[in-house]
Amino acid sequence: MPDYPTSATQNQTILDALNRCVAACEYCATACLGEEHVQHMAACIRLDRDCADICALVARLVARGSEHARHLIKECMEVCTKCATECAKHNHPHCQQCAAACRACAEACREFAG
Amino acid sequence: MPDYPTSATQNQTILDALNRCVAACEYCATACLGEEHVQHMAACIRLDRDCADICALVARLVARGSEHARHLIKECMEVCTKCATECAKHNHPHCQQCAAACRACAEACREFAG
Amino acid sequence: MPDYPTSATQNQTILDALNRCVAACEYCATACLGEEHVQHMAACIRLDRDCADICALVARLVARGSEHARHLIKECMEVCTKCATECAKHNHPHCQQCAAACRACAEACREFAG
Amino acid sequence: MPDYPTSATQNQTILDALNRCVAACEYCATACLGEEHVQHMAACIRLDRDCADICALVARLVARGSEHARHLIKECMEVCTKCATECAKHNHPHCQQCAAACRACAEACREFAG
Repeated sequence: MPDYPTSATQNQTILDALNRCVAACEYCATACLGEEHVQHMAACIRLDRDCADICALVARLVARGSEHARHLIKECMEVCTKCATECAKHNHPHCQQCAAACRACAEACREFAG
Repeated sequence: MPDYPTSATQNQTILDALNRCVAACEYCATACLGEEHVQHMAACIRLDRDCADICALVARLVARGSEHARHLIKECMEVCTKCATECAKHNHPHCQQCAAACRACAEACREFAG
Repeated sequence: MPDYPTSATQNQTILDALNRCVAACEYCATACLGEEHVQHMAACIRLDRDCADICALVARLVARGSEHARHLIKECMEVCTKCATECAKHNHPHCQQCAAACRACAEACREFAG
Repeated sequence: MPDYPTSATQNQTILDALNRCVAACEYCATACLGEEHVQHMAACIRLDRDCADICALVARLVARGSEHARHLIKECMEVCTKCATECAKHNHPHCQQCAAACRACAEACREFAG
C-alpha cells in the first residue's frame, strides 16, 4: 500500500501552519535587512533562514506522506520555538507577526507528533 | 527602501495557490508510485517533481519580496500548465486533484505577472 | 562572533559528499522512472526523493555554519543508509552508483557528527 | 527513452559550479550578518539568498536531467552575475570568494546554455 495520507484534513492544518511560518520567516528576514539597526537583527535573520528552510522541507515531506516528516518534526518544533522567542524580542510588526506564525507552527508540529 | 510587500493580501492569493500546488504535486507523485501501472505514470511523476520544486522556489521568492519572483513566474506558469495537462489524462483522484491545483496555480501566476 | 566555519577544508568534505548524494539520488529517481519494471523501483524512487531533499537541506545548513546542521545530521545519516540499502538491491548502474554515493554520504555525516 | 544524461562528465562541471556557488552564497550571507557594518551588507545578503536558492534548484534539475534546467539557466546566469557584481564591491574575503564563485557559476551556466 502506498505510504500517503488517505485524508488530507488533518494534514492540511500542519501544512498551512508550516507554509505560513515559511512565508513569515522569509518576509521577516527581508524586512529586518531594511531596518535602521540591522546589526540588532542578525540573530533574527539567522533563525528566520533556518526556520524557513526546515519548515519548507517538513511541509514537502508531510505532503508526500513520507515517514521522514515524523523524524524531523521535533527539530522543526524546536527551531520554530527558538525563532519565535528571538522574534518576540523585537517590536517591529514583521517580527511580532513572525513570532506568532512560529508559535502556531510549533503547536501544529506538537499535535502532528502527538 | 526594502524590497518587500507592504500588504500581504494580494500575495497571499498566489502563495496559497503555489503551496497547494506543491502539496498536490508531492501527494500525486507518491500516489502514482503506488498505482498498479506505474509505468503509465512516469511522465506524471516527472512533471510533479519539477512543478513542486519550481512552485516551492517561487513561493519563497514571493514571500521575501524578491524581484526574482517575477523573473520566474512565466516558467512557473508553464510548468503548472504542462503538469495540469499530463495529470488530467489520468482518472486517479490524486491526478485529477493535482490537475486542478496546477491549473489554479497557473491562473494565480498569470494574475501575479499581469 | 558569527557562527560560521573559519576553515572550509573539513566542511568541503561533507559538502561534496552531500552534493554528490543529492545528484545521485535525483539521477537515480529519473532513471528508475525510465526502467521497464518501474513498479519494482517505487521504494527506490521514494527514498531517492527524501534522501535528496534531506541531504540538500543539510548541505545548505553546513555551508551557512548553522548549528541546525548538527541537529539534522543523524537523520541525514539514517536516510542515506536506508537509501543505500534499497538501491543496492537493484543491478541498474544508476542504483549501484546511488548506493555508493549514499554510503559515502552516510560516512561523511558520521565523521561530521563525530 | 528516459530524459536523463547518459554521460555525467559535462554535467558534473556545471553541478560543481552551482554547488560551490550555493555554498559561497550561504557562507557569505552568514558572514555578512557578523560584520560590524551590517547595514552596508543588506543588498549583498539579499542577493546571496536568491542566488543560493536559484542555483540550488537548477542543480537539482540538471542532476535529474529535466528540460526545465535549460528554461531556468538564463535567469540563473543573471542572478549569479548580479550577485558577483554586488559582492565584488566589498573587501571582505567572504564577499570576494563569493564573487568569484558566482562569476564561475555564471560562466558554467553560459556554457551549459550554449
